[in-house]
Amino acid sequence: MNELFLIGIGTGNPDHLTFAGAKALNQADLVLVPRKGPDKADLADLRRQILAKVLTNPTTQVVEFDLPLRDAANPDYRAGVDDWHDAIAAAWTRAAARVPGAGRVALLVWGDPSLYDSTLRIAARLTPPPRIRVEPGITAIQALCAAHAIPLNRIGSPFTVTTGRQLRDHGFPSGCDTCLVMLDGENSFQTLDPQGLEIWWGAYLGMEAQILDHGPLAEAGPRILATRSAARQAQGWIMDIYLLRRHPAPD
Amino acid sequence: MNELFLIGIGTGNPDHLTFAGAKALNQADLVLVPRKGPDKADLADLRRQILAKVLTNPTTQVVEFDLPLRDAANPDYRAGVDDWHDAIAAAWTRAAARVPGAGRVALLVWGDPSLYDSTLRIAARLTPPPRIRVEPGITAIQALCAAHAIPLNRIGSPFTVTTGRQLRDHGFPSGCDTCLVMLDGENSFQTLDPQGLEIWWGAYLGMEAQILDHGPLAEAGPRILATRSAARQAQGWIMDIYLLRRHPAPD
Ligand SMILES: C[S@@+](CC[C@H](N)C(=O)[O-])C[C@H]1O[C@@H](n2cnc3c(N)ncnc32)[C@H](O)[C@@H]1O
Ligand SMILES: C[S@@+](CC[C@H](N)C(=O)[O-])C[C@H]1O[C@@H](n2cnc3c(N)ncnc32)[C@H](O)[C@@H]1O
Repeated sequence: MNELFLIGIGTGNPDHLTFAGAKALNQADLVLVPRKGPDKADLADLRRQILAKVLTNPTTQVVEFDLPLRDAANPDYRAGVDDWHDAIAAAWTRAAARVPGAGRVALLVWGDPSLYDSTLRIAARLTPPPRIRVEPGITAIQALCAAHAIPLNRIGSPFTVTTGRQLRDHGFPSGCDTCLVMLDGENSFQTLDPQGLEIWWGAYLGMEAQILDHGPLAEAGPRILATRSAARQAQGWIMDIYLLRRHPAPD
Repeated sequence: MNELFLIGIGTGNPDHLTFAGAKALNQADLVLVPRKGPDKADLADLRRQILAKVLTNPTTQVVEFDLPLRDAANPDYRAGVDDWHDAIAAAWTRAAARVPGAGRVALLVWGDPSLYDSTLRIAARLTPPPRIRVEPGITAIQALCAAHAIPLNRIGSPFTVTTGRQLRDHGFPSGCDTCLVMLDGENSFQTLDPQGLEIWWGAYLGMEAQILDHGPLAEAGPRILATRSAARQAQGWIMDIYLLRRHPAPD
């Protein structure tokens, strides 16, 4: 493996792939597709769907491999993640070795490889280090704003992108009126005073099951809790994201 | 005009268009292409290049129109922008009227329509209001991270996206270690204490003229000033963006 392509594929809609992403796929000798187990079935399916649609180079091979599991029993969380990343890098190397002479290897990355994703960090563990080429992909942030047809920022104003844990621990970010929350398994908006806040929420963005809600946090918040818990039960899993905007203080 | 498609086209690389963007283009009755004057020639060219490449529906018409100029003499900046946005909405309506029966109208938007862009706000001024459909596009932020092959965020950490003016007026955003600066005509990183800061800079991202630089701000900052001013002189215009990351305080 002397070159590794990290190709962003968007967050559910196969048509969110870019032409550059499709080209990179067809320039690869080998595409590695992780199998994550039955619960995340839809996500591996998106990769297969994309490959079926855009892979036209007959010499590009596709190899599926089992993604190692993280040892959740490791009491040291950071060390557990470190070991896990090493194990994934080793799994890539083993899977790539199944296709002798595969110099250019491609991985399909959920959303954009730069946003809350470990692929670049795992790739940094490969020895010898391959050349890395990144093809950007549509993020969940953009899928959310597009689905609601809203701007991300107020004119000339900053915004912060954060996680559910950070929102719980530190509250609404200071110094800006807009905040995007990802990786939130606990509806962390509940921990905020809803006064003056508006929420735009989306789950399964870009997929058949897409759900949207929007309104003043005080009203929409309880509704989202109920919708989210029902959807999660029905599908067996959920991915959601939301934008919180603070109304300008009345003067 | 009963439906308006706002299609993100990325920030310079025509291959950053998504398949969904290409589909929407071909579903439109009419594509409006603004002419902005000779200084921004490359930008109108990207639109023409994309249309030449992906527009295959023979019934889709393309109309170019002159984008109204903002009255920079208006002493009230906000009112000047308001008037300008009204004038642009009127120019869209007039241009669309040149193709009778064009119900579905498409506009190609630089980067992603949700990020520091006025198109959605201008569209809100149309009467009667058309249905708005947004197709996300690759942003300059993603193009920057992809070109440098770096993650945007530190693991589990927030980041802030801001403008040159905000950075000058308020300094490095509090509460996060990563900050992305856009819309900065004045190299506002110069106003920061460079100690402990690293910069990843990119200009003309996705284009032939793409330039990258990266390093500790104290060293890379002066280099970027020189590169930027030479490039701007050579090309007649420049668009750049940068990521600033604060090193963890040594403990
Ligand atoms: C590990 S991060 C990966 C983000 C991805 N790299 C991107 O560019 O969007 C996963 C988080 O992204 C958000 N997300 C990803 N796909 C989503 C989708 N289809 N609908 C809603 N949220 C999604 C959720 O907040 C989820 O917790
Ligand atoms: C009005 S904003 C539009 C942003 C766009 N909607 C997006 O999604 O990236 C223009 C700013 O985006 C950044 N930008 C846009 N295109 C760029 C490019 N090709 N290279 C570097 N920066 C770019 C610059 O910071 C510029 O000042």
